[in-house]
Amino acid sequence: MKKKIIISGYGKVAKEILKLLKEYRVLFTKKYNIEFIVVAVIGSKFLLYQEEGIDIDDLSLYGLGSSSLENYAKNKRIKSKTLNDIKGGLLIESTPTDINTGEPGYSYIKWAIKNKMDVVSLSKGALVKYFDEIMEMKIESNSQIKYSGATMAALPSMDVGLYSLSSTKIDRIEGILNGTSNYILTEMYNKEENFDQIIKRSQEEGIAEKNIDYDIKGIDTANKLYILTKSLLTSTMNYKSIKIEGIENISIEKIREEKRKGNKIKLIGIADDEGIEVRPMEISQSNPLYYVDGKEKGIVYYTKDMGKIVVSGGESSPKGAASSAIKDMINIYR
Amino acid sequence: MKKKIIISGYGKVAKEILKLLKEYRVLFTKKYNIEFIVVAVIGSKFLLYQEEGIDIDDLSLYGLGSSSLENYAKNKRIKSKTLNDIKGGLLIESTPTDINTGEPGYSYIKWAIKNKMDVVSLSKGALVKYFDEIMEMKIESNSQIKYSGATMAALPSMDVGLYSLSSTKIDRIEGILNGTSNYILTEMYNKEENFDQIIKRSQEEGIAEKNIDYDIKGIDTANKLYILTKSLLTSTMNYKSIKIEGIENISIEKIREEKRKGNKIKLIGIADDEGIEVRPMEISQSNPLYYVDGKEKGIVYYTKDMGKIVVSGGESSPKGAASSAIKDMINIYR
Repeated sequence: MKKKIIISGYGKVAKEILKLLKEYRVLFTKKYNIEFIVVAVIGSKFLLYQEEGIDIDDLSLYGLGSSSLENYAKNKRIKSKTLNDIKGGLLIESTPTDINTGEPGYSYIKWAIKNKMDVVSLSKGALVKYFDEIMEMKIESNSQIKYSGATMAALPSMDVGLYSLSSTKIDRIEGILNGTSNYILTEMYNKEENFDQIIKRSQEEGIAEKNIDYDIKGIDTANKLYILTKSLLTSTMNYKSIKIEGIENISIEKIREEKRKGNKIKLIGIADDEGIEVRPMEISQSNPLYYVDGKEKGIVYYTKDMGKIVVSGGESSPKGAASSAIKDMINIYR
Repeated sequence: MKKKIIISGYGKVAKEILKLLKEYRVLFTKKYNIEFIVVAVIGSKFLLYQEEGIDIDDLSLYGLGSSSLENYAKNKRIKSKTLNDIKGGLLIESTPTDINTGEPGYSYIKWAIKNKMDVVSLSKGALVKYFDEIMEMKIESNSQIKYSGATMAALPSMDVGLYSLSSTKIDRIEGILNGTSNYILTEMYNKEENFDQIIKRSQEEGIAEKNIDYDIKGIDTANKLYILTKSLLTSTMNYKSIKIEGIENISIEKIREEKRKGNKIKLIGIADDEGIEVRPMEISQSNPLYYVDGKEKGIVYYTKDMGKIVVSGGESSPKGAASSAIKDMINIYR
């Protein structure tokens, strides 16, 4: 079975997706009888479209972003197309998220669903901003949508919740959902350096990005957990009701004090049918999240009939995210 | 959509399945549009069959086993039936496993697949003994088979391997797959009592069964890991080539010695494309299995593109096993 793929956004993750699709082409055909053919890549300024399939090897010789798509097209004498030229297939949405507007992901997802296409979303913005609307649209269009890459990527949080716990009720979700803030807290714990020192060093070493407000203020955690909660719990809460507190005011004295008691401070997101809360919490050794250190993430599902299920690990990298988008594609069609 | 269910074996797990199916009937219909109707329960000496569906509430008033089925049938004036009377549906195989013959599960599974029924197996025997044959039969019959309950039950080992890692290659599986032996090693570590003392006390307290050879000699671990390996890796190994060493010769001195070094001894199963090995190993604090203690189990997938994925927890109980069989049923039909 051949499946046409359209990718919106042409950054690091999109490039990794192309690479992996090529690497596993024979295996996917053999194992799942699915052949993915990338027919379009939508950059911010150029839309590359080849009905017969884009030559991934050739394209990989160019860089990232719209200019690379344009150069490739120029050399192949392909004209720029518009969304209207594309008919059917699956959209992989991988544009950078604007969390305030949900754009440009929202427009691409809406376009795809209206055209009865399936969607795999790596970007969070549209899902956080328009979750209910997108789910209504997809039911109306009979489209499928998966978004492992918008929650915990290579760590299977959506899968375990939707698939492995399909027979029971999830009472509560607790997790460390952001790698950067967990790394900072782990460094404070291990090296007993203060917050500002670690931020400075991490940025110099390229471990943390220049703008880490999104990570340390708990917003990334809240966004991921909101998407999980809307998908897995029966809560009717809205995003604005989430109580969010970041790690920016955690003092080294507080870390030391808890360390003496045998505890760690972690940035935890908790969700149940009452709502969502994100804040630094004291975690004892009996909590499985105590052992989730450094850039690692972890999630605990407390269930009605299956006890607690703990999932941790998963590579936080463009490759890990790309692989999580591809498994969503496979799981839609297998 | 209505789905007929046939259960072979009428022990604790089967009874829990009936209870949960009743409890979640409305939810499953609403959420998945599936209504499961239990039409037959196959005891070792009596086959209860009601085409219109068995009254689960009424049956629950009786005990377990064939005699309860027979008493229920007598009071309802239902005659005993044979397998030939049953047409279509899904078989839940939950008979006690004879690991040497794979029976009686093997006969039931073969009967179901030959009759183009789908299968959810909780028993391991047939899968360990006739894995390749069963998989060939099911392809020929276009049947589906799932067996979460025969591997790690409520802990989603098969799901994560098959579904969440569908886009990548699993290089290696490492796990603590048996709760009883892990409990014994944890007690030795915490209380520094020797092996025989703990076995004696556990048996007196009803924590361990009278015959625990299957657990402590590593056979249960090997069986579960064999089923996972055949399902998830590309290994062509056979069961006889598994190297198995149990925990029965672990001395308290050895445990103490490793404890001083900061290590624990755990009964670990390791599988890769080369084969399977089960033996007690020294585990350091950098290994996620170090933190899997008591009756808990845990599994680590080392993957090519998604890093390492760790899953632990999951209730080891008839209810946990029952819930894992029901999720398999849902995931076959949703």
